[in-house]
Amino acid sequence: MTGGPSGLVTLTTDFGTRDPYVGTMKGVIRRVHREADPIDLTHEIQPQDLMEASLVLDSCYRFFPAGTVHLVVVDPGVGTQRRAIVVDTPEHLFVGPDNGVFSRVYATEPRAVVREIRNESLMLSQISDTFHGRDLFAPVAAHLACGLDPAQVGPVIEDPVHRDPPQPVVWQDQITGEVIHIDSFGNIISNVTREIFEMLVGGRNFRIIVNSKQIDQLSRNYEDVERGRVLALFGSLGMLEIAVHGGRADRRIGAGRGDPIQILTGPA
Amino acid sequence: MTGGPSGLVTLTTDFGTRDPYVGTMKGVIRRVHREADPIDLTHEIQPQDLMEASLVLDSCYRFFPAGTVHLVVVDPGVGTQRRAIVVDTPEHLFVGPDNGVFSRVYATEPRAVVREIRNESLMLSQISDTFHGRDLFAPVAAHLACGLDPAQVGPVIEDPVHRDPPQPVVWQDQITGEVIHIDSFGNIISNVTREIFEMLVGGRNFRIIVNSKQIDQLSRNYEDVERGRVLALFGSLGMLEIAVHGGRADRRIGAGRGDPIQILTGPA
Amino acid sequence: MTGGPSGLVTLTTDFGTRDPYVGTMKGVIRRVHREADPIDLTHEIQPQDLMEASLVLDSCYRFFPAGTVHLVVVDPGVGTQRRAIVVDTPEHLFVGPDNGVFSRVYATEPRAVVREIRNESLMLSQISDTFHGRDLFAPVAAHLACGLDPAQVGPVIEDPVHRDPPQPVVWQDQITGEVIHIDSFGNIISNVTREIFEMLVGGRNFRIIVNSKQIDQLSRNYEDVERGRVLALFGSLGMLEIAVHGGRADRRIGAGRGDPIQILTGPA
Repeated sequence: MTGGPSGLVTLTTDFGTRDPYVGTMKGVIRRVHREADPIDLTHEIQPQDLMEASLVLDSCYRFFPAGTVHLVVVDPGVGTQRRAIVVDTPEHLFVGPDNGVFSRVYATEPRAVVREIRNESLMLSQISDTFHGRDLFAPVAAHLACGLDPAQVGPVIEDPVHRDPPQPVVWQDQITGEVIHIDSFGNIISNVTREIFEMLVGGRNFRIIVNSKQIDQLSRNYEDVERGRVLALFGSLGMLEIAVHGGRADRRIGAGRGDPIQILTGPA
Repeated sequence: MTGGPSGLVTLTTDFGTRDPYVGTMKGVIRRVHREADPIDLTHEIQPQDLMEASLVLDSCYRFFPAGTVHLVVVDPGVGTQRRAIVVDTPEHLFVGPDNGVFSRVYATEPRAVVREIRNESLMLSQISDTFHGRDLFAPVAAHLACGLDPAQVGPVIEDPVHRDPPQPVVWQDQITGEVIHIDSFGNIISNVTREIFEMLVGGRNFRIIVNSKQIDQLSRNYEDVERGRVLALFGSLGMLEIAVHGGRADRRIGAGRGDPIQILTGPA
Repeated sequence: MTGGPSGLVTLTTDFGTRDPYVGTMKGVIRRVHREADPIDLTHEIQPQDLMEASLVLDSCYRFFPAGTVHLVVVDPGVGTQRRAIVVDTPEHLFVGPDNGVFSRVYATEPRAVVREIRNESLMLSQISDTFHGRDLFAPVAAHLACGLDPAQVGPVIEDPVHRDPPQPVVWQDQITGEVIHIDSFGNIISNVTREIFEMLVGGRNFRIIVNSKQIDQLSRNYEDVERGRVLALFGSLGMLEIAVHGGRADRRIGAGRGDPIQILTGPA
């Protein structure tokens, strides 16, 4: 990170909000660094769903001030030999387990440097085998948020775990993507970016097919079609998204994560 | 607003907490103004339910310090021609879409001045068609929270959208109100204020009827009747409320939002 | 409390997050003391479940900085004659109703001093009969968080309400404990501490029985057994916990709160 710290620590976990696990992490953060400021991204990642956590983080970390620390605790391997890491990029720091949850960061931040967290003086004095979010990750994130040089956490590693997110396939006049997320409005979000879409379609006619539902045009917003109708647009994540004006597209179309989405086009 | 800013920005949305939409808005707020302090009111407004958002806001904004900015993003018309507005009152500022969500503010704050947000220099450099909460409302709220003069956002408008909340009807010896909210304890909250109730009933006997359940007295608190019994009281919102000591009134009585509630009284 | 205030106020309630009750309390806290910093522990305590609130608080308050105020509003008796109290301990302050919700604090903090809140100048000017969280507890907590001497809230009382949490019973070669919590991962948490377990078992063989499921060894972490298998470990609360690697133990075993858990051991 080249600038100074912002003091902010974003939190992304699969802990839910019923138990006080997240509150406890915030207590530890504030005990280490009184001015650190924890902000929730979400605590409702599906249990142990690394790909969802990776997507959530990617969709929003750029909107935070430079110098923000992003803490992710989706950690099925807690207490095993999996490494704990810090990912250092020009504007943001990321803290979490080395299980692939930062794969999208590696893909979009070519200058990322990954370090293993080994410096025990940065952790709580007792480390449980089941809650590194509290005992290890929260205090390290707090130290970084108050300006600790990432080089102090431990050595650079060259082989962090990657889990590549599914990529859309372009073949002849067709893109085959997949549904990567259903948001809380029921919008169906795919992995097809505007760039890939434009590259294939150019100015030609096209057809989008999800679960045999066909859509032949792009909308600009959710009210661009009549109430109750299905539409396609590039949403706030920059991805092709299927929605229903005033309703839930996931229920209407019966589509869920992992389902294919196809874009067909004909001769120019 | 006549005093200085408090730095606080309350957030009321229908985004839920599963997606990182709210966290992203907080990131933007903090990027615009490091000292701004976002506080959640609720993110569980029923999707696109303007009347619920209006009621929630009205029930609590007065408890915040003078100089607080209240941001509401319940915005079915995002990306259409609906206007974005700031409502300037002596003690509080309100920011959101011009869709009637501030109707209760207009009713209770006679000195409210409404301005359309037109100043693009206050927004993010790229404005999506689907997430003005992030791209437009959050940065404007942050600027106001750090002391921006509301006159800078854009011109005064005289015709903001009103959606009048349902009013109880008083006719002869009867009030006919309606259920406007079921809270998370299952308490049934009506639109009958203490003032209207007292005006009709005075010191006389009365009968409250909801879904054929009859209640003939007012309680002061939830333990004023035996455990498991239905009671009526004026709750923390100042409205006539039906509750069950130690249980859920909505399930017991089978009442939901929009159901009528009647208060009958006889000759003095 | 011997040191200075941290400014932090933790919040534990059964209010849920759908209604703006918690947000309103935060508004009041910030109105009393601009620098006070509310942190959510949980708002999803089962309605009026004092034992759960007591357990949640006990599991995490020590992780907060010295000088933190812990506010608990699980208050079935609001508006009745039940007292409102402050519990003053060397490092932390606790604020809430005198209904036994602080019983675990009394058990673990021998130097705790309990005071009844009587000083009306610390409260809002209007006190409702149904929402003391907003009108009484939040402002008192905020005053304490900015350094008010606890002696100012009211007189010491010697007879605060105790509700003793269930204790495991050790008899001959057997411990009979009980399930005190199911966390959001479905982990089954008992009231058997490591100390009691070690005292009985020493180095001998043992058998843990929950709902006729038998476990004969302790694991160190959730991946210590094959995926899908049941395991037992001492979790982050320091209690004996039954879990499933990659699954939910509560559903697998069909166990819920209050169910017995037995540890048997044989001759050395």
